[in-house]
Amino acid sequence: MSKVAVLGAGSWGTAFSMVLADGGNDVAIWARREEVAASINERRENSDYLPGLELPRSVSATHDPERALAGADVVVLAVPSQSLRTNLPMFLPYLEPDAVLVSLMKGIELGTLERMSEVIREVADVDPGRIAVVSGPNLAKEIARREPAASVVACEDESVATMLQKRCHSPAFRPYTSVDVLGCELGGAYKNVVALCVGMAVGLGFGDNTTASLITRGLAETARLAMRLGANPLTLMGLAGLGDLVATCSSPLSRNRTFGEKLGHGMTVEEVYASTRQVAEGAKSCSSIRALAEKAGIDAPIAEHVDEVVAGRMTTAEMMEAFISRDPKAEIE
Amino acid sequence: MSKVAVLGAGSWGTAFSMVLADGGNDVAIWARREEVAASINERRENSDYLPGLELPRSVSATHDPERALAGADVVVLAVPSQSLRTNLPMFLPYLEPDAVLVSLMKGIELGTLERMSEVIREVADVDPGRIAVVSGPNLAKEIARREPAASVVACEDESVATMLQKRCHSPAFRPYTSVDVLGCELGGAYKNVVALCVGMAVGLGFGDNTTASLITRGLAETARLAMRLGANPLTLMGLAGLGDLVATCSSPLSRNRTFGEKLGHGMTVEEVYASTRQVAEGAKSCSSIRALAEKAGIDAPIAEHVDEVVAGRMTTAEMMEAFISRDPKAEIE
Repeated sequence: MSKVAVLGAGSWGTAFSMVLADGGNDVAIWARREEVAASINERRENSDYLPGLELPRSVSATHDPERALAGADVVVLAVPSQSLRTNLPMFLPYLEPDAVLVSLMKGIELGTLERMSEVIREVADVDPGRIAVVSGPNLAKEIARREPAASVVACEDESVATMLQKRCHSPAFRPYTSVDVLGCELGGAYKNVVALCVGMAVGLGFGDNTTASLITRGLAETARLAMRLGANPLTLMGLAGLGDLVATCSSPLSRNRTFGEKLGHGMTVEEVYASTRQVAEGAKSCSSIRALAEKAGIDAPIAEHVDEVVAGRMTTAEMMEAFISRDPKAEIE
Repeated sequence: MSKVAVLGAGSWGTAFSMVLADGGNDVAIWARREEVAASINERRENSDYLPGLELPRSVSATHDPERALAGADVVVLAVPSQSLRTNLPMFLPYLEPDAVLVSLMKGIELGTLERMSEVIREVADVDPGRIAVVSGPNLAKEIARREPAASVVACEDESVATMLQKRCHSPAFRPYTSVDVLGCELGGAYKNVVALCVGMAVGLGFGDNTTASLITRGLAETARLAMRLGANPLTLMGLAGLGDLVATCSSPLSRNRTFGEKLGHGMTVEEVYASTRQVAEGAKSCSSIRALAEKAGIDAPIAEHVDEVVAGRMTTAEMMEAFISRDPKAEIE
């Protein structure tokens, strides 16, 4: 049996640990809080994030980075995006030589505007051929319930992607390989911002025609930026682009959509933060994605308006009004 | 005031009449059944298809094709797709010279495998520059409630598309122009088949990860066929492709999704037909789209499997099993 370390015991880290266990791996979860590790080991459950779902026997947890990483040839990073840079140095001394680093994180770092694989590369000083990402329509609770899902495993080194594909293939989880790390990461980060926007529209009472239009524009905006930065446009039409976007925007389980809905209902950003323990990644990434688009010279009205709303400079109603009052023109310019 | 004839008093024909009235047109609806015309004229309501929604004063209805068409420089066709060929000859004698024909219909004719604009061109013998289509994320009930929506007006002659854009632009309805009639029509027809498939998955109890994957594959399948036949791939990523697909697959108002859900719950096709008055276009078009894909040499697993289920040769569970058991590979080949 091969060992995988999963660093981070949130809902997606824990659900992906189940996938890895189903795929035949021995999984060690590193949990930031000691009591979460204890709960996983003693009750076989992550009661904070996936209550009521039994973890396989081959999943264990620890608060000790050294124990989590010992003997792991695959290391999955599942900490909050904006804390990756400060968390990574704690793990690096215990990394096995040649271990592959897999990011489950979906965000763009504030300030540096770096994608998660770029932060890893910089901080861990490893070759891009050893850095991979997993991204797709993968709502954690559904994955943990073993409902069938497909995903993309991307790595610049295709043989590494194929190795990871085998390691996380289970009866319920079908990973497709890709070499487009950039496209997958941008799709994953941008979709949280679009889901925030869709949530705001839903909260304001708009229907399925409006949300479908926002999803369409959101994907076009994502694809524009991704292509400008060098991604394959087909990645954005695939599972890590359209697929992840549609799942996140459709699901009441989505934190970002829910965050937006609360804003649409009239709560302030501070009130929404106070009402939930979970992070809505899009509320951070909207600002860095907007900056990334500006730097690339790309028109990004959704990122821009969502950022204005999250910063408290615009109401959700004003945002929708701005979208609706644009003059109609040719769809493809 | 300019006059528009809308031929067909179903839910989309009636809702689009409201858009046209809001856009400043005088609208005459032709209704197949005399009592529907009477209800529209007397009660200002289409109680069969849009109960409880008041029609504007500038909308009237008639059972007489000649009265509907007299003086109309724009003629909107909104009859069931498979009956277009037999219905058209009844209208042709009364068509104003140079009237523009606009199709709201979304289907592929059985047998001939023709799109609706092709049937119009053939039967009415008019130039393609006078044939347009309107397609987008436009659930009729939401449009009739004047919820904001965007759409695409496509015509090979861009100036005609721009004329129609002005005629149907209202505060709640924003039409974008396009010259890609083929892409819009294929997107509109194919999405009904994908919605049937998504409905089946929902009926069987699958979650948002699965439906998002089916939507992603469905759009890829649509784009493959559309590109092979000469459409612009960006049309499929736009409102008449992705937008319409997402709205139809997300909405409980969608007839095709509902039809699929009932099949997923275990009803036979005959039982579903018996349970509803409304047509699920996808249950017809799956067979012609499958044939079109075969003729074009395109792999179309969703159209193929949905056709098998609708023909009673496969169960919905067998269809999902066939999708899930495919070997994972590279996402982009």
